Amino acid sequence: GRTGFPEVVFGEGKTVHQIINIINSLMKTNRRVLATRIDELKAHQIQAILPMLTYHPVAKALTWVHSEEPEVLYDGYVAIVCAGTSDLPVGEEAAITAEAFGCKTERIYDVGVAGIHRLFHQLERIENASATVVIAGMEGALASVVGGLISNPIVAVPTSIGYGANFQGLSALLSMLNTCSPGISVVNIDNGFGAGYYAALINQKTSNKKGTYRNEDSIF
Amino acid sequence: GRTGFPEVVFGEGKTVHQIINIINSLMKTNRRVLATRIDELKAHQIQAILPMLTYHPVAKALTWVHSEEPEVLYDGYVAIVCAGTSDLPVGEEAAITAEAFGCKTERIYDVGVAGIHRLFHQLERIENASATVVIAGMEGALASVVGGLISNPIVAVPTSIGYGANFQGLSALLSMLNTCSPGISVVNIDNGFGAGYYAALINQKTSNKKGTYRNEDSIF
Amino acid sequence: GRTGFPEVVFGEGKTVHQIINIINSLMKTNRRVLATRIDELKAHQIQAILPMLTYHPVAKALTWVHSEEPEVLYDGYVAIVCAGTSDLPVGEEAAITAEAFGCKTERIYDVGVAGIHRLFHQLERIENASATVVIAGMEGALASVVGGLISNPIVAVPTSIGYGANFQGLSALLSMLNTCSPGISVVNIDNGFGAGYYAALINQKTSNKKGTYRNEDSIF
Amino acid sequence: GRTGFPEVVFGEGKTVHQIINIINSLMKTNRRVLATRIDELKAHQIQAILPMLTYHPVAKALTWVHSEEPEVLYDGYVAIVCAGTSDLPVGEEAAITAEAFGCKTERIYDVGVAGIHRLFHQLERIENASATVVIAGMEGALASVVGGLISNPIVAVPTSIGYGANFQGLSALLSMLNTCSPGISVVNIDNGFGAGYYAALINQKTSNKKGTYRNEDSIF
Amino acid sequence: GRTGFPEVVFGEGKTVHQIINIINSLMKTNRRVLATRIDELKAHQIQAILPMLTYHPVAKALTWVHSEEPEVLYDGYVAIVCAGTSDLPVGEEAAITAEAFGCKTERIYDVGVAGIHRLFHQLERIENASATVVIAGMEGALASVVGGLISNPIVAVPTSIGYGANFQGLSALLSMLNTCSPGISVVNIDNGFGAGYYAALINQKTSNKKGTYRNEDSIF
Amino acid sequence: GRTGFPEVVFGEGKTVHQIINIINSLMKTNRRVLATRIDELKAHQIQAILPMLTYHPVAKALTWVHSEEPEVLYDGYVAIVCAGTSDLPVGEEAAITAEAFGCKTERIYDVGVAGIHRLFHQLERIENASATVVIAGMEGALASVVGGLISNPIVAVPTSIGYGANFQGLSALLSMLNTCSPGISVVNIDNGFGAGYYAALINQKTSNKKGTYRNEDSIF
Amino acid sequence: GRTGFPEVVFGEGKTVHQIINIINSLMKTNRRVLATRIDELKAHQIQAILPMLTYHPVAKALTWVHSEEPEVLYDGYVAIVCAGTSDLPVGEEAAITAEAFGCKTERIYDVGVAGIHRLFHQLERIENASATVVIAGMEGALASVVGGLISNPIVAVPTSIGYGANFQGLSALLSMLNTCSPGISVVNIDNGFGAGYYAALINQKTSNKKGTYRNEDSIF
Amino acid sequence: GRTGFPEVVFGEGKTVHQIINIINSLMKTNRRVLATRIDELKAHQIQAILPMLTYHPVAKALTWVHSEEPEVLYDGYVAIVCAGTSDLPVGEEAAITAEAFGCKTERIYDVGVAGIHRLFHQLERIENASATVVIAGMEGALASVVGGLISNPIVAVPTSIGYGANFQGLSALLSMLNTCSPGISVVNIDNGFGAGYYAALINQKTSNKKGTYRNEDSIF
Ligand SMILES: Nc1ncnc2c1ncn2[C@@H]1O[C@H](COP(=O)(O)O)[C@@H](O)[C@H]1O
Ligand SMILES: Nc1ncnc2c1ncn2[C@@H]1O[C@H](COP(=O)(O)O)[C@@H](O)[C@H]1O
Ligand SMILES: Nc1ncnc2c1ncn2[C@@H]1O[C@H](COP(=O)(O)O)[C@@H](O)[C@H]1O
Ligand SMILES: Nc1ncnc2c1ncn2[C@@H]1O[C@H](COP(=O)(O)O)[C@@H](O)[C@H]1O
Ligand SMILES: [Mg+2]
Ligand SMILES: [Mg+2]
Ligand SMILES: [Mg+2]
Ligand SMILES: [Mg+2]
Ligand SMILES: [Mg+2]
Ligand SMILES: [Mg+2]
Ligand SMILES: [Mg+2]
Ligand SMILES: [Mg+2]
Repeated sequence: GRTGFPEVVFGEGKTVHQIINIINSLMKTNRRVLATRIDELKAHQIQAILPMLTYHPVAKALTWVHSEEPEVLYDGYVAIVCAGTSDLPVGEEAAITAEAFGCKTERIYDVGVAGIHRLFHQLERIENASATVVIAGMEGALASVVGGLISNPIVAVPTSIGYGANFQGLSALLSMLNTCSPGISVVNIDNGFGAGYYAALINQKTSNKKGTYRNEDSIF
Repeated sequence: GRTGFPEVVFGEGKTVHQIINIINSLMKTNRRVLATRIDELKAHQIQAILPMLTYHPVAKALTWVHSEEPEVLYDGYVAIVCAGTSDLPVGEEAAITAEAFGCKTERIYDVGVAGIHRLFHQLERIENASATVVIAGMEGALASVVGGLISNPIVAVPTSIGYGANFQGLSALLSMLNTCSPGISVVNIDNGFGAGYYAALINQKTSNKKGTYRNEDSIF
Repeated sequence: GRTGFPEVVFGEGKTVHQIINIINSLMKTNRRVLATRIDELKAHQIQAILPMLTYHPVAKALTWVHSEEPEVLYDGYVAIVCAGTSDLPVGEEAAITAEAFGCKTERIYDVGVAGIHRLFHQLERIENASATVVIAGMEGALASVVGGLISNPIVAVPTSIGYGANFQGLSALLSMLNTCSPGISVVNIDNGFGAGYYAALINQKTSNKKGTYRNEDSIF
Repeated sequence: GRTGFPEVVFGEGKTVHQIINIINSLMKTNRRVLATRIDELKAHQIQAILPMLTYHPVAKALTWVHSEEPEVLYDGYVAIVCAGTSDLPVGEEAAITAEAFGCKTERIYDVGVAGIHRLFHQLERIENASATVVIAGMEGALASVVGGLISNPIVAVPTSIGYGANFQGLSALLSMLNTCSPGISVVNIDNGFGAGYYAALINQKTSNKKGTYRNEDSIF
Repeated sequence: GRTGFPEVVFGEGKTVHQIINIINSLMKTNRRVLATRIDELKAHQIQAILPMLTYHPVAKALTWVHSEEPEVLYDGYVAIVCAGTSDLPVGEEAAITAEAFGCKTERIYDVGVAGIHRLFHQLERIENASATVVIAGMEGALASVVGGLISNPIVAVPTSIGYGANFQGLSALLSMLNTCSPGISVVNIDNGFGAGYYAALINQKTSNKKGTYRNEDSIF
Repeated sequence: GRTGFPEVVFGEGKTVHQIINIINSLMKTNRRVLATRIDELKAHQIQAILPMLTYHPVAKALTWVHSEEPEVLYDGYVAIVCAGTSDLPVGEEAAITAEAFGCKTERIYDVGVAGIHRLFHQLERIENASATVVIAGMEGALASVVGGLISNPIVAVPTSIGYGANFQGLSALLSMLNTCSPGISVVNIDNGFGAGYYAALINQKTSNKKGTYRNEDSIF
Repeated sequence: GRTGFPEVVFGEGKTVHQIINIINSLMKTNRRVLATRIDELKAHQIQAILPMLTYHPVAKALTWVHSEEPEVLYDGYVAIVCAGTSDLPVGEEAAITAEAFGCKTERIYDVGVAGIHRLFHQLERIENASATVVIAGMEGALASVVGGLISNPIVAVPTSIGYGANFQGLSALLSMLNTCSPGISVVNIDNGFGAGYYAALINQKTSNKKGTYRNEDSIF
Repeated sequence: GRTGFPEVVFGEGKTVHQIINIINSLMKTNRRVLATRIDELKAHQIQAILPMLTYHPVAKALTWVHSEEPEVLYDGYVAIVCAGTSDLPVGEEAAITAEAFGCKTERIYDVGVAGIHRLFHQLERIENASATVVIAGMEGALASVVGGLISNPIVAVPTSIGYGANFQGLSALLSMLNTCSPGISVVNIDNGFGAGYYAALINQKTSNKKGTYRNEDSIF
């Protein structure tokens, strides 16, 4: 919570037992909790013990918000723009993360450049966001296209979707780093969490409302 | 000439003397000659001996067409679509190559995705071509965008323009190979010649007029 | 269908349920349907609901042609040239794709350079095609050899067949991009679909017969 | 200017003549102009014609602000945190860019992790910025360290400073993409401009004052 | 044993039968035995035959010390500094290895740079070690941070923990090789054994007590 | 001389002075001397002092054979097969090396796969060699083609000729390592010396005549 | 059989049925047959139909020699030098291949550079071979060491044994290609067959006895 | 000086003026100074102002020791083992660094594995060192060979010497990281300074004499 944000549990490689313990202790000092990279089976075992948690199966995330804590803490919203259906899990991880941090989100899915006209119908919704997350695999061209059309800060997430010379997301990653459109920064391949977090940080900064959740954990 | 096309001289690494000799001998059995990758200094030294050659400084190419040979041999045209000014040398190499082979060309330059509205004004000219060459460096997103908007066969040329994580054109190359738009094939980084040749091949095939230049060279 | 071609479903990562729904809706507005990357098990589950579909097990593709739609829509044919038996699934994906789009095909298989004489008996069949797809793994030399012998536009497909310093198809991919034979363009590793589509596009353009299938879907 | 920001000229690969023409025309419709990647020699030739431009030799940038335009347009400031002296040109490119866009900046230089105590004296200045640019070559660890200590959105810029297994900045780039600290996004190697632009975008969004410069250029 | 150190068995790829035979024969001529990379199942099968062996499940190592051989042979200790919980198996492999060679160890775990204040509480324990092993995955920044704060020789171990642009530990490996902090050398990704061995070698050299275990095996 | 072969000087990075000293001392105990990687300027300076040396400008090699030593020491010959004119320096390095070791050579140049019929006229000369060196840049397909046609042991040399996705010879190197033709082994990119040496070794082994040059240098 | 050598079946990716058919037909026109990359299960199924085949489980190879054909066809022998126990499958593939082609072999195993004295006891056996295959994973240093000590032509085989920065054999492959010892050529990672074949080719050439097996298969 | 060691100036990219200023100020608070990566021209300009500095042209380093400071501060010595003449600059950088820190050194040069018997005559000198630096380019096998023969801690330095598949030192770097000999750690390509520093650190720790130079600079 040092960053004024709820503590997050990275579930990959942790046992059900470990995750339950960590969440349990976080719930004592935080009013919002997020756990990512938790598969369906683990989620059900955790929920058996901690039934107040909500599981988001596409995002593979568990969230909890204290009953006295408002769902939404900030003005504005984060736009989540996603190229194809295979990129949805990363898109949902970003969306659930931003929401766990008290942001509103707008999901704009299936607007990849192979059918670019679908994107054009959504430009206003994207432009009006505080920050935009753009998620794409394959060649990752969507980030450059959106970046050329809107003036928001964009956080681009390359995904590992593709095959052959895709090299598990390298293609989209290099694309996004070399974009000729300004106003785009990049996080790691498949890192929906990192992008959602980053966009939420910008949204929080640009909001007039200020989040109220408790956050005891100090830096030093 | 084995492919029904004029002989081409690859000038890189050849001396002025060697190039003059090769062109001289080609001019005896061919009615069209093309030499690529020839810098300004070399070109002038070659033209001092062979003044009938035309030098194209941006393309760095020398061409010659026999006085009895028509400039244009085929119906239709090849569209050359270029992202940025730094990509022009590759664009011109492609255009001059297609023209050297008797095709008409349409140059559609400076239509990169960072200012995508400029591309939209040109879509009809691109759609009506027999084949389209798309040239882009940086993240190479232009190929996917054009591929998503038109139904022509597209030959994509990644260029080495960029820096950092561009890795001398690797970024655009991977982008184009991983494109989510159908109808796109790829040639080597900076290979304007290869793309112009390929597009000319398709244009020749789809044309009702048939080229007339002499071509003695047989396969076996 | 925006490109004048039937809609194609990329099956990888989609559920049986999703694929059935998409095909169902495509069958209402298209007279030809193609779905690729569908394994045997999924195919049977889909066919249980949609028995009018044909499954091609080597290509792992499902196809459907409306009963009033002719199998073949164009003059000429696409040649599919394949190096080894391990490359067959990619070869078949290319062939079935070209056929799904109304092209005739000629399969010329098992003509890799280790036994190059087998290729020589097939040169005429290759030369007479409208376009040629060349498929090879390992070192991918077949593309250069065919490119040096025929004058067709060639679409080269590197496959991931090989081991060690093959790096999942990188070796053949680089080979094909660096070919010293002109008239060769390249698609992604194992992308039989992309090559079949591209060759069909050229065949369609060079044909006097014009395809008749319905295609309602417009660009904007 | 489509993004509400001044037009920027990327000087690399452009002639003095081209740059003068572009700047000249931009000065007619914009009140702020920035040109980057311009070496000392070129800069002097351009200033001979356009003496109202200011040259920043370390950043290798030219800037101009209309006489009626205020230097600073926004509240808050952008922090520019730089690891070593060799990284300064990238740091200055970021700083001059942010300033060209009307932001105040704070330069916090020579605070690399090999002497980490120097960083600790600067934490408050970094924490109070609207956004922070962190610039580091070699192993790029500075981004993670700053990210672990402050709660600002950080834009990390890997530089190509280093040798051997540095691979021209790949080491720092991968470091920053794989950071275990949250709140960090990344731009291309040596892309000080991109980071300064991005941080200015966030600063602009979080400011109560709103920039006043003219910006005629519309999207469609 | 040629290096004055106990023989080590690398268990990966060896059968239970082979491992039992090797350990059996080593126990005749050595007073300390270590076997690494042995999973739980294999370990139990080996212990069924050789019940005097101790299994360390996190390290995946089997050890044995002769009843007349002291546990600790040297003064001083080796510090094992570990970034995150996922790095623990590598940390334990290093610790068990150093202990198998007669060194004392201090484990300093979960002190990654995302929560750098936890590291500061441990600096003295690290500084007072004879040699320090630093283990980190992701971006591997911990090695540089520790290296900037202490004056011990550090052996850095990159781990394969991470995803996306981590490339199975390449990110941390390059980080550690390019460190700007002096006094750091590097072993292979995940090579806890190599680091524990190396640190033990330094500890042995700097100790006044000298190890007593038997070691018959001569070089030539 | 330990291998029954003359000593070789690798000239790259050595001064004229150093090379003269080494050659001088080798001439006292050897009857054949070879020095490679010596540019024209250095060669002339060395020949000014050691006028009995012969310089081969394309191979960039200096050779010397004692006046009582026969030029040719072995039966049979080494075939040197070269794809394009740009590969000639590597071809000549191989040829001069094999000759320096007392082998006859047959040069078969300019037989790349883009004009494969030229190769077919030379097959018998290649088949009858004791060993064959095949040299090619670009995609390196020539090695596989020759390997599929003849039964000699082939030493393949990838060259760094090419551009773009050639990556300084990586393309040809991977091609040759992944060849589907048997009977091919590979040396380093541009290593004409290594291939000439290896082929000479095989030729020496298969010859009935045995070399007579003095060779004082023993192993231990 | 075109190379004067028995036909070889590459078993990987072929069905039991296909392998039986190929071997059956080869046995009609050849007196020696070799099939590689055949796992234990497949081997037993093939032997159930073709009981005259011998299976070599470590090499994963099936061989057959006609009852009237002598086991050994040539003078001399091929030395197979192997670094570690994990490299044995590759070593055995090489050995069985050379034997299938009528060569005698000497296996010199477990002589890696970590215990280099074991190698020294075997130098004479290696030196006296017609050709030597050196097999090593990890850092592949064994090839350079053997190459520095003996004067035979060496065929080096990198193996994929190792982890971390080994990158599936890349480390040993680069080592062997960059060897500073002369007389070494390289085949693909794990390609025991290729090395055994190549060494047999040299052994056959240097032998006075000439192989007698029937070999009907002609090139054209 | 925080590490109990003299301050070191990294000369690359610094101006003569900057270097003079830094050295000047270091000489006030330190009794030993080292500056690395300083070419001959710069060195002479610096020495014109600071004539008390000693320049080491092969190492490209400047050193200074206060007149009251003893040359040697510690027992024992550091062995510097170097493969070939091209590796000498890295070897000398390591040696001069260790000496600048008060260690004795033994230089053991030109003992590469292509002539491995030269190494065997030096084993005792290497074994008796406190720590050993092994420097090699090409395939870097020397580190494994030395590591297999001696029991010292070894710091291995890959150099960028080589060509082709050497990839500027990657080959030797991977070799050393994947060594099968224990007791080896690795620093960056060409980082003679890092290795000399590290070996000096071990030598200092194992020495009974303790260095006396003044060192005012504290950590926090
Ligand atoms: N700019 C170019 N890039 C790649 N290949 C080229 C280029 N120009 C010509 N070529 C090819 O090089 C061949 C001629 O090579 P050469 O015989 O060396 O002059 C032509 O047949 C073309 O296939
Ligand atoms: N976990 C490990 N990682 C790397 N090398 C190891 C490991 N454990 C043991 N070794 C090395 O492997 C050698 C034993 O290999 P082996 O003879 O195959 O059991 C030992 O001498 C160690 O140098
Ligand atoms: N052109 C070359 N490429 C690679 N290795 C070479 C070449 N010329 C000579 N060599 C090798 O370099 C060794 C001599 O190296 P040096 O002692 O540095 O002169 C010889 O024994 C050869 O093995
Ligand atoms: N040759 C070298 N290679 C790598 N690092 C070096 C070298 N020389 C000095 N250094 C490091 O660079 C630091 C000084 O950097 P600087 O402050 O830029 O002069 C020293 O503390 C050393 O850790
Ligand atoms: Mg934008
Ligand atoms: Mg299209
Ligand atoms: Mg062709
Ligand atoms: Mg932070
Ligand atoms: Mg330190
Ligand atoms: Mg052959
Ligand atoms: Mg040798
Ligand atoms: Mg050792």
